[in-house]
Amino acid sequence: MSDTPPLTPGQMLARGTCRHLRDLGFACVEELVPAPGLRVDVMAMGRKGEIWIVECKSCRADFASDRKWQGYLDWCDRFFWAVDADFPSDLLPDDTGLILADGYGAELVREAPESRLAPARRRAVLQTFARHAALRLQALRDPGVSPLP
Amino acid sequence: MSDTPPLTPGQMLARGTCRHLRDLGFACVEELVPAPGLRVDVMAMGRKGEIWIVECKSCRADFASDRKWQGYLDWCDRFFWAVDADFPSDLLPDDTGLILADGYGAELVREAPESRLAPARRRAVLQTFARHAALRLQALRDPGVSPLP
Repeated sequence: MSDTPPLTPGQMLARGTCRHLRDLGFACVEELVPAPGLRVDVMAMGRKGEIWIVECKSCRADFASDRKWQGYLDWCDRFFWAVDADFPSDLLPDDTGLILADGYGAELVREAPESRLAPARRRAVLQTFARHAALRLQALRDPGVSPLP
Repeated sequence: MSDTPPLTPGQMLARGTCRHLRDLGFACVEELVPAPGLRVDVMAMGRKGEIWIVECKSCRADFASDRKWQGYLDWCDRFFWAVDADFPSDLLPDDTGLILADGYGAELVREAPESRLAPARRRAVLQTFARHAALRLQALRDPGVSPLP
């Protein structure tokens, strides 16, 4: 793994967030595409199948330039931001969740309101999550695997 | 990854099987526990969410000692065996699927009959698959991750 590029600030936030979410019982995948044109930083699935999305913002400009985040609300039961301690968190909408993170861990500061996925959408999200995780896992475990069909 | 132990004959069959299934559009995970006391060699999910289980048998004794395989039928839409070219495949029940494999690839020789999962069971299997894949992926990507809670 020594040829892995260093993590970006956003990826560091995602790593710490995923560590904490795992401690809370969630399985996480990063950089998942729930629908064409959307790419979420972290999607997390709880023990009961609940789906959270976490967008990681390393600075004000990173947040200000995000024109897509409201589109993510349709793909999860709860939506959170993950930012570091220096981020001006009053910029973030009150009706979203907040996670304070660094590269090594995180803390859930404000719970997000729940807006439950409809069953058909939930099933589609679950399948996308499962296939994404399994295909990436196989690519890491088996370097001889062929490119995605 | 240089400290990874060599693969067992069964794991070699699983690797070749997963490579082929991936070419067929399936995402695969290995050594998944769908329910306490059961551990399947390969669980594969197709693009439409269909679930296959593949049990890998490296020799006659390996098959003869398996007392659990019929329990796997309740956890998939189709059930297959994966064996190598030297395996006496007439030992295997006719109403199961057959994959010929080695460590590098595989071929689907006999399609398995379909016995579709009930919706509630399918959802449970899908969640187990997704969480298993994501938690293993995270453990490989992030060596600093804490043990499973």
